[in-house]
Amino acid sequence: MSTLDSSDAIFKALAAPTRRALLDALKDTPRTTGDLCARFPEIDRCTVMQHLKVLEDAELVIAQRKGRERWNHLNALPIKHIYERWIGPYATQAVDVLDRLKTNLG
Amino acid sequence: MSTLDSSDAIFKALAAPTRRALLDALKDTPRTTGDLCARFPEIDRCTVMQHLKVLEDAELVIAQRKGRERWNHLNALPIKHIYERWIGPYATQAVDVLDRLKTNLG
Repeated sequence: MSTLDSSDAIFKALAAPTRRALLDALKDTPRTTGDLCARFPEIDRCTVMQHLKVLEDAELVIAQRKGRERWNHLNALPIKHIYERWIGPYATQAVDVLDRLKTNLG
Repeated sequence: MSTLDSSDAIFKALAAPTRRALLDALKDTPRTTGDLCARFPEIDRCTVMQHLKVLEDAELVIAQRKGRERWNHLNALPIKHIYERWIGPYATQAVDVLDRLKTNLG
């Protein structure tokens, strides 16, 4: 067995809580790098840009340059592929039922 | 911003390729720990058990003891919650269209 798979960059990118928080900030709308830095004032700009680079290399973020601004878009496809890897079309309904049951019991 | 979120254990568990391979092996059917060890002969039994423990702590694997055997079940709920965190019900259709488009163009 190879201990690596093609999605290694994706899971490594998602393993850092700061990078997950950056993705959360991009869920509803694309944002400029300046906007993201302003939203995470406790992290210096250089570190935010490093995290964005890791997310971009993993194709979780797609960057688009417009004039002097860099717009960061969440790319949901790798997330969808994680879901499909372990759940897939046939199990979706069963997992939904289980989740509702758990919510109702909780 | 807190740099931790409640799903930290899940993402850390998924960050190791061996643990993802173990989850792959459990996708279609629960397996005993002995069966899993036999499927990964290049990893010693103790290491397999450590990986299973990390997966169990992250609730990605649910273990069930039957007599002398320990049956490991994939728990798909945390995977479903990753999907919902960044995609959610409204974006699902859009992501599906994008994925089909990408597959057809590729």
